[in-house]
Amino acid sequence: MIAEIISIGNELLNGNTVNSNATFIAKSLHENGVSVNFSQTVRDDAFAIKSALQLALQRAEIVLITGGLGPTHDDITKVAVSEYFDRKLIFREDIYQKMRKMFERRGIPMPEINRSQAYVPENAEVMNNPVGTAPGLIFRRGGRYAFVMPGVPREMTAMLKDSVIPLLRKECPDCRVAVNIFRTTGIAESAIYEKIEKELKSFSSYEIAFLPRFTGVDLRVIRTASDMDDQEKFDRFRSVLSRHIAVYIYSEDETELEEVLGRLLSERQETVAVAESLTGGLIQDKITNISGSSAYYMGGVVAYSNEAKERLLMVKENTLENHGAVSKEVAAEMAQGIQKQFQTDLGISTTGIAGPTGATATKPIGLVYIGVAYHSKVKTRRFQFGTDREINKQRAAQAALELARQVILEINS
Amino acid sequence: MIAEIISIGNELLNGNTVNSNATFIAKSLHENGVSVNFSQTVRDDAFAIKSALQLALQRAEIVLITGGLGPTHDDITKVAVSEYFDRKLIFREDIYQKMRKMFERRGIPMPEINRSQAYVPENAEVMNNPVGTAPGLIFRRGGRYAFVMPGVPREMTAMLKDSVIPLLRKECPDCRVAVNIFRTTGIAESAIYEKIEKELKSFSSYEIAFLPRFTGVDLRVIRTASDMDDQEKFDRFRSVLSRHIAVYIYSEDETELEEVLGRLLSERQETVAVAESLTGGLIQDKITNISGSSAYYMGGVVAYSNEAKERLLMVKENTLENHGAVSKEVAAEMAQGIQKQFQTDLGISTTGIAGPTGATATKPIGLVYIGVAYHSKVKTRRFQFGTDREINKQRAAQAALELARQVILEINS
Repeated sequence: MIAEIISIGNELLNGNTVNSNATFIAKSLHENGVSVNFSQTVRDDAFAIKSALQLALQRAEIVLITGGLGPTHDDITKVAVSEYFDRKLIFREDIYQKMRKMFERRGIPMPEINRSQAYVPENAEVMNNPVGTAPGLIFRRGGRYAFVMPGVPREMTAMLKDSVIPLLRKECPDCRVAVNIFRTTGIAESAIYEKIEKELKSFSSYEIAFLPRFTGVDLRVIRTASDMDDQEKFDRFRSVLSRHIAVYIYSEDETELEEVLGRLLSERQETVAVAESLTGGLIQDKITNISGSSAYYMGGVVAYSNEAKERLLMVKENTLENHGAVSKEVAAEMAQGIQKQFQTDLGISTTGIAGPTGATATKPIGLVYIGVAYHSKVKTRRFQFGTDREINKQRAAQAALELARQVILEINS
Repeated sequence: MIAEIISIGNELLNGNTVNSNATFIAKSLHENGVSVNFSQTVRDDAFAIKSALQLALQRAEIVLITGGLGPTHDDITKVAVSEYFDRKLIFREDIYQKMRKMFERRGIPMPEINRSQAYVPENAEVMNNPVGTAPGLIFRRGGRYAFVMPGVPREMTAMLKDSVIPLLRKECPDCRVAVNIFRTTGIAESAIYEKIEKELKSFSSYEIAFLPRFTGVDLRVIRTASDMDDQEKFDRFRSVLSRHIAVYIYSEDETELEEVLGRLLSERQETVAVAESLTGGLIQDKITNISGSSAYYMGGVVAYSNEAKERLLMVKENTLENHGAVSKEVAAEMAQGIQKQFQTDLGISTTGIAGPTGATATKPIGLVYIGVAYHSKVKTRRFQFGTDREINKQRAAQAALELARQVILEINS
């Protein structure tokens, strides 16, 4: 099954808004066995919308349209698409009442302007909008579909998930695929490939993609209908990963590392505190993005100055003098110091040179030491990252969370 | 002048990569007086690329193509576009030597596969790639241009800035525009609009856009050639903003608030420390993203627990008992405590309920108190944000940086 995406909105073509909608739709369709061959972005202009739709219906069986369903005068998508399909717009009392109720629940009067959103094409199939006022629309012609969805990402994603995907699944049972994502960190894309390359040959019917991020490489495996019920084969595939890269895989369900670490601590009813230097609060920001983190995360210190490292983290003056602030010895004392300061099971520390300035004769930009103290154990690790400040912070934060995971699970990588 | 963008790459249509390139190109062109009417995304497929190019050349004078210039077998953009324009590819020794030197500087041998990147269309105009190996290409036909650029964002943005934009400026002197961005925080889009709506009528030839972000609203003003030299008119416009929203404007050059605050502190040779509760390290992460922040940022504490607030921030047990951790009294003591702990001129604090859980009978989700201690002054402010955890953290961080700016500059909003 072939699909095409049409994104509508001047803000997209003036560069004010990144078109994350198109990416989300493409990803959802791809992970449901539907290929997207083209994606078009057009202005809020009836002629442009109709031309794009005509072209899309020539080369795709399914057209997904987003944007321009709002109540203001520049939202013309519904009118343009209805004209293209020769459908009159009619007022639907049921939709109008549903909108009124939505405003009532929010405790604000419904603006008169929203009334226009209760007009839909006659005999239209309407898709429910669980989080907004604009209903979605389905048009069918000659075995082809056009789905019209709002441009507000929250509304579009809900409608895609609740209405579009289930309908496509029903229309095309053979499109059914299974998607597995193995998240890795601490190993380069090319290194993963080298390790498993030969054994991948037995899995040529799997679509295997290496998706690099600053914090690691995601391995995405898509199995089509002919393969997905062969559990024995997939078990063999997993054992290939197990043999070669098990220690680098921290999640198999798109969970981020900070959440994986949080789950480990929750299971053990243990706690963590963090001492950051070059990462400057980023690790704790990530940890506290997880709802419920207050159960295991006690707090921490950002110690940019040596003085703060001594006073709040009990790093010895001697250690700083003999080894410098960027050293494995200081990383170790920082991790133990924060563990003691907050009386936690786990202490995590980072020290390094984020760049782009600050290098010394012996300490280049991107040099980072990570420390982990877990009960009475202490472990440190050295990294040499690049020259970009924010990327170095991201990588150091991920490396610190990963070392903590490995120490808790007694993994030796 | 009308432009069209063609983005090439399977990763875009499988939803693996957000097409930030198209947004960046559209923004750059728009801010240089060139309109983008359509944007197409196609697969690494010669037929698709040629079809897209043909269509684009029918409706635009300038076509900007990105992606598929790498050295691997799925990078076919150069071949497809050269075929479309009936140009043979020839080996260019000078490009080859330049690539070799680039690899030499990096200290790695040049892979044989990169040799293919030294082939360019005969009589081609080549655009220099200052940060990568793939050269850019310019094709001209019948007064229309096609620019071919790499898909790696760092390479594309450098080439656009260094080669494409200067050429377009030369070709179209009348496209010249002036762009001003006024960054605001602490005021809603609709409230700005209400305040300045009437006076905007005298500036109908300005293109004025309200661009909302989680942390505030950017006001972007674009003046075309006919307007941009009328300085007196622009001064009148600025005085409208001054009269109505001056206190909310923190920068006029796209600088982020953490950098504005950093500059203020640097000028005064003053220092800052931060005590975070609900923001969980985010404020310090933002501050330390600025290169050179170690000159004024000393460090800070993330105190999730009451115990940490007492021990590290010297918040009184009584205050916590009488007012609760989420209160203006605790925010004030946290700000003073961190100022004292790090001996800084400025102390910033946040306390609140990030959500989505944690509300009490009297303290709803999204309730936030900000505290600022500056020398002997202390100021607090109360906010009621929404229910999204990460957005609440972002808003609270921005509100804290903004209150610090206002206190330093003695602004009363």
